[in-house]
Amino acid sequence: MKVGLITIGNELLSGFTTDTNAAWIGQRIGEVGGVVIWHLTTQDSREDIIRSIESTPEDVQVLIITGGLGPTHDDITATSLYHWAQTETEFDEDYWKELEEKFKNRNVTIPEINKNQALKPIDGEMIQNPVGSARGIRINKNGLDIIALPGVPAEMKAMMTLSVIPLLDENIHNPIHNQTLRTTGIMESALAEKLEPILRETKVKLAFLPKLTGVDIRISSADTNEISELRDAIFHAVGKYIFGEGDILLEEAIGKLLIKKNLTIGVAESCTGGLISDRFTNVSGSSVYFHGGIIAYQNKVKITELNVKKETLETFGAVSEETAIEMAKGIQSRLQVNLGLSSTGIAGPGGGTDEKPVGLLFIALAHAKGVMTKKFNLTKKRIINKELASQAALNMIRIHLTRD
Amino acid sequence: MKVGLITIGNELLSGFTTDTNAAWIGQRIGEVGGVVIWHLTTQDSREDIIRSIESTPEDVQVLIITGGLGPTHDDITATSLYHWAQTETEFDEDYWKELEEKFKNRNVTIPEINKNQALKPIDGEMIQNPVGSARGIRINKNGLDIIALPGVPAEMKAMMTLSVIPLLDENIHNPIHNQTLRTTGIMESALAEKLEPILRETKVKLAFLPKLTGVDIRISSADTNEISELRDAIFHAVGKYIFGEGDILLEEAIGKLLIKKNLTIGVAESCTGGLISDRFTNVSGSSVYFHGGIIAYQNKVKITELNVKKETLETFGAVSEETAIEMAKGIQSRLQVNLGLSSTGIAGPGGGTDEKPVGLLFIALAHAKGVMTKKFNLTKKRIINKELASQAALNMIRIHLTRD
Repeated sequence: MKVGLITIGNELLSGFTTDTNAAWIGQRIGEVGGVVIWHLTTQDSREDIIRSIESTPEDVQVLIITGGLGPTHDDITATSLYHWAQTETEFDEDYWKELEEKFKNRNVTIPEINKNQALKPIDGEMIQNPVGSARGIRINKNGLDIIALPGVPAEMKAMMTLSVIPLLDENIHNPIHNQTLRTTGIMESALAEKLEPILRETKVKLAFLPKLTGVDIRISSADTNEISELRDAIFHAVGKYIFGEGDILLEEAIGKLLIKKNLTIGVAESCTGGLISDRFTNVSGSSVYFHGGIIAYQNKVKITELNVKKETLETFGAVSEETAIEMAKGIQSRLQVNLGLSSTGIAGPGGGTDEKPVGLLFIALAHAKGVMTKKFNLTKKRIINKELASQAALNMIRIHLTRD
Repeated sequence: MKVGLITIGNELLSGFTTDTNAAWIGQRIGEVGGVVIWHLTTQDSREDIIRSIESTPEDVQVLIITGGLGPTHDDITATSLYHWAQTETEFDEDYWKELEEKFKNRNVTIPEINKNQALKPIDGEMIQNPVGSARGIRINKNGLDIIALPGVPAEMKAMMTLSVIPLLDENIHNPIHNQTLRTTGIMESALAEKLEPILRETKVKLAFLPKLTGVDIRISSADTNEISELRDAIFHAVGKYIFGEGDILLEEAIGKLLIKKNLTIGVAESCTGGLISDRFTNVSGSSVYFHGGIIAYQNKVKITELNVKKETLETFGAVSEETAIEMAKGIQSRLQVNLGLSSTGIAGPGGGTDEKPVGLLFIALAHAKGVMTKKFNLTKKRIINKELASQAALNMIRIHLTRD
């Protein structure tokens, strides 16, 4: 099934909002074997919305539209769609009563401007919204199945899951399957070169998806046996860089390893400023192995809370292998955990010197048999450095745990 | 100046990658007074790329294309563009030598597959890439100014900043100006109702941009006086919810307040798991006021590292106002800082009870004159709860500091 997507809103085009809905919709459609082949973002004027619907490629069977169904003056998707489909509307008294009740339960008086959300088309259906007040619309016109949903992610997602996906699932034949292998610690071109002999032999579609912290390899085919064979060949060639499959995150992969080996961990962070702990605790159930962390942003905190020696800081500096080692050992003994992980570096943009430039990073992992350390030279950008440093630190745990 | 944007890649349509480039480009274009009016995402086949270029609306003057300029087999933007524009290519020996040199300096042998990146069109220009090996392409055809850039964000951004923006800046007349007021702690419909009298009176364009953690209000006009008047009226009506203007983040606004008042802060996190500290330390220069944090994910860490009383945990539980208060006071005294901020809650999806359901949150702020606390009932979703909790906690600091 070929799906088209139109996302509506000047705020998307102007970049005031990043469109995360499109990726989410693409994934869900892919999971039921469909494929989004075209995605247009347009301004929120009636003229632009209608022009966009009309420019939908002919091979699109289902057109999903998101955004512009809210209560305010700039929400004009519904009226534009009704105009294009030439359908009249009527006021839905039942739904209005339902809305009034909903707001009453929350001790809020319903604003009058919500009234336009109770309109419904005569030639179409409404799609229930279990989260908010804006219902979805489904209209079939000129052989195109059009589904309009609100742009608020929580509402759109609930409605896709409850109503739209089950609807599409029935209409899909001969689905394409995907398998993703997630790597970290190797560049795209090096990965491509290592896989070149495999790529030359296979007819199966393979894509490299480089991200800041790693490269995903995606295998696509209608034949699951072909996928499985190619997957094994790739594992054979570059398996040591693969931390997981599907949409697993590195922090989830590490969580599984820690649970399997029955190990606990604590984190001592300087330059990453809480990001490593944040990533650990994004994983549901992480409290089993993640006991806690100390963010020692100032040197005095490194001394009082992590037992880093004053002399170490004076002799080698806060950003040094020696300090990283003492931080890792410090958190390991303070929290009485099996593994102590630390980061110290110069995130930037200021604070660099010739000897210790912005981007310099030391990470250390204290384990039962000693301490593993690594030095990196990252970029000049603060947020990117935090992200890369947290990835390198997490990957160090993976390397340690898979090496044993 | 009206700009069109085509982003290329099956990984964007399938949702394996979230398109963050589009928002970034929209913002940069807006800053120099241009406007992105159309954005299409297409599959990476030659046919689709050419069809997309041909479907560009007639009022688009500059068309930016991103993605598919890398070295691997699925990077076909350049050849598609040359095919569409009917231009031949030649091998750029100088650039190839430059590339070889670059790789040599990094102690990496240049893969042969990078050779296609040294091709250049006869009827067009190349755009330098200061970060990676894929250069950009500029071709003018049928009155449309086409600029193709790599999709890797760091490379695209560097090239936009260095080459493309300066080029566009010269071509812009009668720019539209934007002013954004950022609110938190109030719903979109409540905000719209409070501003309804102002909205009714003005002809200036005003948009509400709801996000998970707040609503942005954007004023747009070619007349900066009109913007300034409307801005003042909005401040008069809902100023207490506005934490800043432009693209300032809540953590940046708080940083400015803390510096102004010469105060230091430490954070004790349970359910937010490091996210509050991460947000503080995303701000360059935050080490002046942010001294550190303790992530007490397990109860024993709350006792040993934050001096929370065992009896408090036993009597009231880890998720309670009493524990939040002791955590806030604990971090305040441990790190010897002016303000101690704490969070404790049930992030979910598991761990909820009838009495203490998933989404329950307590935050506390210990300051010079006492402790401020607040209770929330958030959602059932872990990552959303962490985000909302960190926002509520940061907003508590803002409310405290602006109330004084």
